Amino acid sequence: MKPPIGPKTQLCMSLAARPGNFGSRFHNRLYEGLGLDFIYKAFTTTDLPAAIGGIRALGIRGCAISMPFKEEVIALLDGLAPSAAAIDSVNTIVNESGTLTGYNTDYSAIATLLDEAEISPATPFLLHGAGGMAKAVAAVLRDRGHKQGTVIARNEAKGRALARTYGFAWDHAPEGLYAPLIINATPLGMAGADADRLAFPTESIKAAEIVFDVVALPPDTPLLHTAREAGKRVISGVDVAVLQALEQFVLYTGVRPEPGLVEDAARFARCV
Amino acid sequence: MKPPIGPKTQLCMSLAARPGNFGSRFHNRLYEGLGLDFIYKAFTTTDLPAAIGGIRALGIRGCAISMPFKEEVIALLDGLAPSAAAIDSVNTIVNESGTLTGYNTDYSAIATLLDEAEISPATPFLLHGAGGMAKAVAAVLRDRGHKQGTVIARNEAKGRALARTYGFAWDHAPEGLYAPLIINATPLGMAGADADRLAFPTESIKAAEIVFDVVALPPDTPLLHTAREAGKRVISGVDVAVLQALEQFVLYTGVRPEPGLVEDAARFARCV
Repeated sequence: MKPPIGPKTQLCMSLAARPGNFGSRFHNRLYEGLGLDFIYKAFTTTDLPAAIGGIRALGIRGCAISMPFKEEVIALLDGLAPSAAAIDSVNTIVNESGTLTGYNTDYSAIATLLDEAEISPATPFLLHGAGGMAKAVAAVLRDRGHKQGTVIARNEAKGRALARTYGFAWDHAPEGLYAPLIINATPLGMAGADADRLAFPTESIKAAEIVFDVVALPPDTPLLHTAREAGKRVISGVDVAVLQALEQFVLYTGVRPEPGLVEDAARFARCV
Repeated sequence: MKPPIGPKTQLCMSLAARPGNFGSRFHNRLYEGLGLDFIYKAFTTTDLPAAIGGIRALGIRGCAISMPFKEEVIALLDGLAPSAAAIDSVNTIVNESGTLTGYNTDYSAIATLLDEAEISPATPFLLHGAGGMAKAVAAVLRDRGHKQGTVIARNEAKGRALARTYGFAWDHAPEGLYAPLIINATPLGMAGADADRLAFPTESIKAAEIVFDVVALPPDTPLLHTAREAGKRVISGVDVAVLQALEQFVLYTGVRPEPGLVEDAARFARCV
């Protein structure tokens, strides 16, 4: 049983332009399951410096950082962990007695998932996208030692810049491109306007061995659906979302929950 | 049933040098009982301006202010309600879309209790103490129209200043002083070093009609115990503590709970 909220209860939180439900449900479910004296609550703000100052002054233990604050927040922190420094982007703050350190658990989660899938650094890849998640994926691939890869982005300036930063090639569209590892880091296939759009042509999916979609909602994007039907190995955006939230949980609490508890919390967090 | 914590959950909090349990237990119990989507958590800080900035930036709905922040906080707010302006002391902040207003629910609670006891403004009084609570009591008495009263304080400078501000007399000790209304606003009788000390001589208690002790812990101070044994009407510090917390609750949530729920929450909050 979780103790009732009292002076020693630790607060963890999130900051996002549009706060979601996943973090609150995932973390609070694990606090309950493990009997930890923590609570988790999602916030938004129009004054990031004051919000971060408040985290420091109130001793709020940890904070998830979402769009559009991931880069702006860096100047307000006391230091960056290697995961955040690798991509100059923070999605997690840990507060140790008023000293705020930025982490990027998307980076860590993507690295772990590629390692667990035993993908060799010699594997060529196609990475579709040039936004924040594409940057995280590109940095992980570079840091794993991948040399052969193409960043695909319609926006030539952004695409070329990302490709150059991490030492990869650039192309403007995925048509006619093939690689054993293909990764979508665009919103294509995400619930909403682009829900029906396939991030890679069917031919590229069929030619691949492993298909990785960072889109977490819906869990079964058109890309992953097509890949599974073609018998490909897949890594899903849900895997990234859960693993990165788990890494935040471990950073905040110092506790690594059993896999069964994590699965339960992930299932609970998605059922909204 | 209270909904699970989510993005719409409102956070209320307290700031004190030494955070206690009463507020968390009282407010959270009422949120549970009424099914309100609120949580309450006690905090401390060593950086009051940043903490208040964080309340504004994070949209924290309300904040109880305890020692030693009640006066320092005024400069950080956008305005004062009459209850706080009357004593230049804030024990409650309400955040309306980033505009922070200071209230003093001790003042309001004391006023309500004196009204409910139907104490005529013609009643002379003795007020023992010259600290924050004494100031609140003196202001209420002045604002009710009491003219005849003595502030008792060993510290002559503080005592005379308080008495002068609110138009009353001053004396250095309660011995040999008598009035129908006697009020203790010192720590005498409070759990700790002064637990056994009586705030007024037995003769003054016997000569009084109404005895008011602002000390809330223990609920039955030596002063109230003696007064009850002598058949006097009493107002207890617990009444003040509960009523001021209730007024905070109403300010934060806009909901005034049934007396039965308040009694339950007050009982629950004291059982620690």
